[in-house]
Amino acid sequence: MQVGFLGFGEVASTISSGLMDNGVDVYTCVIDRTNKTKEIAENTGVKFYNSYRSLAKNSDIIISTVVPSNAFEVAKMVGKYSKGIYVDMNNVSPKTVKQTLGMIKNGKTVDAAIIGSVVEMGLNVKVIASGPFADDFAGLKSFGMNISVVGSENGHASGIKLLRSAYTKGVSALLFESIQHGYKMGIDKEVLKYISETEGKDFIDSAVSRITSAAFHADRRSQEMEEVVEMLSEKQDPVMAKATEEFFKQLSKNIKKPNKRPENYLEVFKLFYGD
Amino acid sequence: MQVGFLGFGEVASTISSGLMDNGVDVYTCVIDRTNKTKEIAENTGVKFYNSYRSLAKNSDIIISTVVPSNAFEVAKMVGKYSKGIYVDMNNVSPKTVKQTLGMIKNGKTVDAAIIGSVVEMGLNVKVIASGPFADDFAGLKSFGMNISVVGSENGHASGIKLLRSAYTKGVSALLFESIQHGYKMGIDKEVLKYISETEGKDFIDSAVSRITSAAFHADRRSQEMEEVVEMLSEKQDPVMAKATEEFFKQLSKNIKKPNKRPENYLEVFKLFYGD
Repeated sequence: MQVGFLGFGEVASTISSGLMDNGVDVYTCVIDRTNKTKEIAENTGVKFYNSYRSLAKNSDIIISTVVPSNAFEVAKMVGKYSKGIYVDMNNVSPKTVKQTLGMIKNGKTVDAAIIGSVVEMGLNVKVIASGPFADDFAGLKSFGMNISVVGSENGHASGIKLLRSAYTKGVSALLFESIQHGYKMGIDKEVLKYISETEGKDFIDSAVSRITSAAFHADRRSQEMEEVVEMLSEKQDPVMAKATEEFFKQLSKNIKKPNKRPENYLEVFKLFYGD
Repeated sequence: MQVGFLGFGEVASTISSGLMDNGVDVYTCVIDRTNKTKEIAENTGVKFYNSYRSLAKNSDIIISTVVPSNAFEVAKMVGKYSKGIYVDMNNVSPKTVKQTLGMIKNGKTVDAAIIGSVVEMGLNVKVIASGPFADDFAGLKSFGMNISVVGSENGHASGIKLLRSAYTKGVSALLFESIQHGYKMGIDKEVLKYISETEGKDFIDSAVSRITSAAFHADRRSQEMEEVVEMLSEKQDPVMAKATEEFFKQLSKNIKKPNKRPENYLEVFKLFYGD
């Protein structure tokens, strides 16, 4: 089994390591890529092709993990050479993923999305997949990947991921806004307590984690929300998603970004108010 | 123990019944009130005073459960006659509750807020209370009320309630928006499933209940959010709360209100799209 990666950042590195441990041959190509990417690929210990064309021709499964804005261009570049199954694992909207996978001439395509943190979970991170060749891609479960097929249509996996993301990021923004106001009134602990009575026992820990994470990743969140808003705008006026995007934009502008993730929300609000 | 109610709707009726069962004398006054209010008070079996002044003079504890827009006027009317403890149990902002309780000349005031549904919980519904006489008001626990003192300052109980409300109503709006989009794509069940993997096992039931309830009570929700937005606007630009208010305004405008609460969200979205 030969797996190729287009783009080689954290996701590719983590999954490659795991696959190689389980006996898979992993290749990439780093022509015209940054030194950082080359370094990551070398440190991971994958093998190299000297052209994207060779990578595309020789991989049983080729996985695209580039920056979202390059997803389409990369698919276009290798589309007519790809012999195996082409998997788009980028964080893009269903519309973009369909356009991207439309470039793959043999039609052996998969829309895949990572749910959760690849840093925390490693090879075992949950991957959902849809599209005509999702079942074939799921064969990588034999090599340790944690893939669930969620449908046969391209766009479904990325849609599920983005809608889940709209919800979880929105919840973080709501929490931040309410608890920040409670903090100013001196009733933040009580607000958390009375919300937790209907939201279950894990609510408070999860809320604190969401508030600190929102502060630390505000900028990235606002960028990710752009994709969500674009997707939701296709079918409705997404009032809540737009507000979530705006919330994270304002937050990243107003907060002095901490060097490390704050340990609790009091630290966050102190950062916010500079005392 | 003599308890008086100013205003006599569902909350007053439910709490009165329970208190009377436990041996409390309950009074109200229905001068200039609607026939509906008179009827509720008569059916509940409380006793009547012929003036608000007498009610205020003779009650050990007087509880205001009027419509929020009347909270201030009612307090102003009885403020100089109130001999006992005056409890504002209306759904108003901390600022309004402070102004309202400022009308009570003897200063024996309590800011109280109901958390949850008085219809479902009856006398046992959770009531949070703050203010200088909150501990005294909590004496009604001996007569079956479920009162928790959350602070000594007027404004804290109503603040906790409104911030909790900002969060829970916002979550309902987020869910509605995401799942509605998922429904149009045919992936609503999967979106719920993958959100539930991080949100806990009760998430799906709770989500379905929130979506149906949002549809059924959209109009009331948008009105309640006005108070939340007013409160949050005192200290920040409440991006998420404003969006939640807007969401429910649009929803109440766009959805054909069902006669009874829908049983599941598929019914809701069918109502929405009229098929």
